[in-house]
Amino acid sequence: MEPRKASQSLTILTDLVLPSETNPLNNLFGGELLARMDRAASIAARRHCRRITVTASVNHVAFNKSIALGSVVTVEAKISRSFNSSMEIFLDVWVEDRESGNRSKANEAIYTFVAVDDSGRPVQVPAVIPETDLEIERFKGALRRKQLSLVLAGKMKPNDATELKALFME
Amino acid sequence: MEPRKASQSLTILTDLVLPSETNPLNNLFGGELLARMDRAASIAARRHCRRITVTASVNHVAFNKSIALGSVVTVEAKISRSFNSSMEIFLDVWVEDRESGNRSKANEAIYTFVAVDDSGRPVQVPAVIPETDLEIERFKGALRRKQLSLVLAGKMKPNDATELKALFME
Amino acid sequence: MEPRKASQSLTILTDLVLPSETNPLNNLFGGELLARMDRAASIAARRHCRRITVTASVNHVAFNKSIALGSVVTVEAKISRSFNSSMEIFLDVWVEDRESGNRSKANEAIYTFVAVDDSGRPVQVPAVIPETDLEIERFKGALRRKQLSLVLAGKMKPNDATELKALFME
Amino acid sequence: MEPRKASQSLTILTDLVLPSETNPLNNLFGGELLARMDRAASIAARRHCRRITVTASVNHVAFNKSIALGSVVTVEAKISRSFNSSMEIFLDVWVEDRESGNRSKANEAIYTFVAVDDSGRPVQVPAVIPETDLEIERFKGALRRKQLSLVLAGKMKPNDATELKALFME
Amino acid sequence: MEPRKASQSLTILTDLVLPSETNPLNNLFGGELLARMDRAASIAARRHCRRITVTASVNHVAFNKSIALGSVVTVEAKISRSFNSSMEIFLDVWVEDRESGNRSKANEAIYTFVAVDDSGRPVQVPAVIPETDLEIERFKGALRRKQLSLVLAGKMKPNDATELKALFME
Amino acid sequence: MEPRKASQSLTILTDLVLPSETNPLNNLFGGELLARMDRAASIAARRHCRRITVTASVNHVAFNKSIALGSVVTVEAKISRSFNSSMEIFLDVWVEDRESGNRSKANEAIYTFVAVDDSGRPVQVPAVIPETDLEIERFKGALRRKQLSLVLAGKMKPNDATELKALFME
Repeated sequence: MEPRKASQSLTILTDLVLPSETNPLNNLFGGELLARMDRAASIAARRHCRRITVTASVNHVAFNKSIALGSVVTVEAKISRSFNSSMEIFLDVWVEDRESGNRSKANEAIYTFVAVDDSGRPVQVPAVIPETDLEIERFKGALRRKQLSLVLAGKMKPNDATELKALFME
Repeated sequence: MEPRKASQSLTILTDLVLPSETNPLNNLFGGELLARMDRAASIAARRHCRRITVTASVNHVAFNKSIALGSVVTVEAKISRSFNSSMEIFLDVWVEDRESGNRSKANEAIYTFVAVDDSGRPVQVPAVIPETDLEIERFKGALRRKQLSLVLAGKMKPNDATELKALFME
Repeated sequence: MEPRKASQSLTILTDLVLPSETNPLNNLFGGELLARMDRAASIAARRHCRRITVTASVNHVAFNKSIALGSVVTVEAKISRSFNSSMEIFLDVWVEDRESGNRSKANEAIYTFVAVDDSGRPVQVPAVIPETDLEIERFKGALRRKQLSLVLAGKMKPNDATELKALFME
Repeated sequence: MEPRKASQSLTILTDLVLPSETNPLNNLFGGELLARMDRAASIAARRHCRRITVTASVNHVAFNKSIALGSVVTVEAKISRSFNSSMEIFLDVWVEDRESGNRSKANEAIYTFVAVDDSGRPVQVPAVIPETDLEIERFKGALRRKQLSLVLAGKMKPNDATELKALFME
Repeated sequence: MEPRKASQSLTILTDLVLPSETNPLNNLFGGELLARMDRAASIAARRHCRRITVTASVNHVAFNKSIALGSVVTVEAKISRSFNSSMEIFLDVWVEDRESGNRSKANEAIYTFVAVDDSGRPVQVPAVIPETDLEIERFKGALRRKQLSLVLAGKMKPNDATELKALFME
Repeated sequence: MEPRKASQSLTILTDLVLPSETNPLNNLFGGELLARMDRAASIAARRHCRRITVTASVNHVAFNKSIALGSVVTVEAKISRSFNSSMEIFLDVWVEDRESGNRSKANEAIYTFVAVDDSGRPVQVPAVIPETDLEIERFKGALRRKQLSLVLAGKMKPNDATELKALFME
């Protein structure tokens, strides 16, 4: 199975914030953004492995910035690393100011997808080739995040999470 | 500001999996469940503090079990702990087998909400009184999760995350 | 076929009033509430009989109170009585005041569902055991409502509707 | 206030049954049809009185016939009678067979709307002039249904419901 | 295959402009109106040929008039002419003023549909009999529009488009 | 007002075909694609002029290829030319084959938008600088299409449509 470049999975979903997606403050509902990111991430995962992909988990997502009704929101999703049948997808969410045209980071998120066959059984996916500095940094961080997931799920002893442990030992 | 019992915030959202919410395997989209949990959690947060509440972050959410079209899904949301203006909401998601009537855990999730006034500025919320064993366990775990968020966001040094560090020091 | 307690069918659907569900006065559309009640009632019916259930009729529903955008609405559905393959489901709809936390009755409704097999043919359902005073009162009233339906549909002569007739003979 | 003909309020809503509106048997959800009828009825009411109109109640609605995915459904709404600020709207729902082009009655329903001003207060509406035999029959029946609503709501003594009582006295 | 009158395909879709369908100026989104017209036109096409119909093309559609949230919009679709397996559907869109009850033209559009069998292959459709002056005018214009489509798609030489050419030769 | 490059307006909307957007053949509804293209085009227009933009017209759109449920669809929108307050937006729609990863053209469309101020009055927009061969070709063709619109709307005599007339004079 040929490894594939991270950049080949890049998925861009630019769309408006519609009136049906807003909360009482007239900002985009957190839940709607989570759903939109899920769709973009599932396409990036599918572009990497060319199989059906299903959401396995959502890592910590922070909503730092509210996004107003009528905004143009761009969700960019790209694979950061794969592990057997699972793929970590990194998402960057941008909002554009209509008048200046400037875009600013609204938030980041990390989703994990699993590739499955038609009956829903996990299948192997290609390795990822990171190229840019950011792709390499996110590729490296993925192992630490993988260990964190396993520790939080009680499937790995904290003591065995070498990458993670190092963080607290400095 | 009077502390309030965790149980007073309990929010139950039982609903069907509709055809418009399913993926190519005819299971509930991860993104749709994230949106549904966000609404239930925002209500639980609002019941605790009686203010407008907005999603601040989503912690690690694992989708362990696929949920088929037509299923009855119950999302239960309850506050586990509060910190100044933020509230950690714990969610348990259950799926029912139609024929046996048995319900089984589909997944858990943790969302954090912030209470705001009409102009979106954070406001203080009441403390939480946990009563059952599970409520107490989740109340205690909340501090460790809070530190983990701060460390991951680069807002706390790993060395200062005493609760979290202890996990790796045993 | 074992009779089942009314309380075993209790279904709670707490959710927000979303912007896409409101009329020009910024209140919840009657039609949207009817759809939401239909889903909750179908789950209560299904919990009672553990079969596929389809809407057979909607009894008189009064919308006494408008429900504003952003409100928290709780629909509670519970079976009141069964007749062969049909089930009468009673719904109570509550709205919460965010600031005081008080909840008040917005309206009541009665739906009737029929249990069917995979090809849509009616199947027998269990009898209902009412326990609380309210459950017993609603169980008793169900026969009168059943007769009223039959009379209005021209399937029973008013003279044979003994329960109903008594109402006018006092 | 000039009386207006029933026929001037006729509202026709012909649309497809979309995939997002179906239940596990691939038929139109009862709740979706209720919502669609509510919109058509509100337009008929508005055409009669030229004011904002809100749903006041839904009378007994029977779902006699299932409506399959992809069907063409026609909802016809027309005012039958008015009482001060309230309007009774009669709905006939038709389904077309694609191959023969024949249309058959799927169900009937009766909704009541109230005309309101911008602040939601009830306002007077014009009287209705029925012309066809069916319009006259429905105009007459409206008084009996009005009494039935009042009796069921405990706002009229059964003994005073002269029209209704006559039904049981024959 | 018996020809059929244009009037037999008339399809009327009267509905409200809902909050989820509006742009930042609180008017109906162009895209939503396009979708609504597509559904009405597909029903008119289906009523003419009694087969499954799929959208083949949309001709020039001008949005001359904005349509406000809460408006009552009537889409009227009727076949103007057929060519083998394709059908040209003419749409007129009307908006009503609530207070005066007057309706005014919001825009016109022309869609083309193709009749297909269950596997999606084109099938022959009946000829159209135009009766009113407007139906006859639209029937005649359809040939010129057909040629224009073929020229724009590079499937006909401008010189062979006799009807169209005449327009520029006067 | 500084002219702006066509490429600066490029808008990419990659998303799944969801179950609620399909017709009886399980393909994307024409109307849904029209709505999705409208949103992408409105963003491209807005990126060019940094004003509120509203749909003015849709040119001939051909649906050459059906798009199956679950497909990944990419809508690319870019401005081709501007005229005072109006902007012609060219759309290319691509579908990806999941297994091979190849993408093929599903259809093209041309929408026209008008820039408006907060009260809906048209405002001047920047000129467009085309750079690639395709951008230049589309820039040139825009004038011919503009004349065609005016002729079809009866606002220009065919004889004055010099660009268009030349097409039939060769």
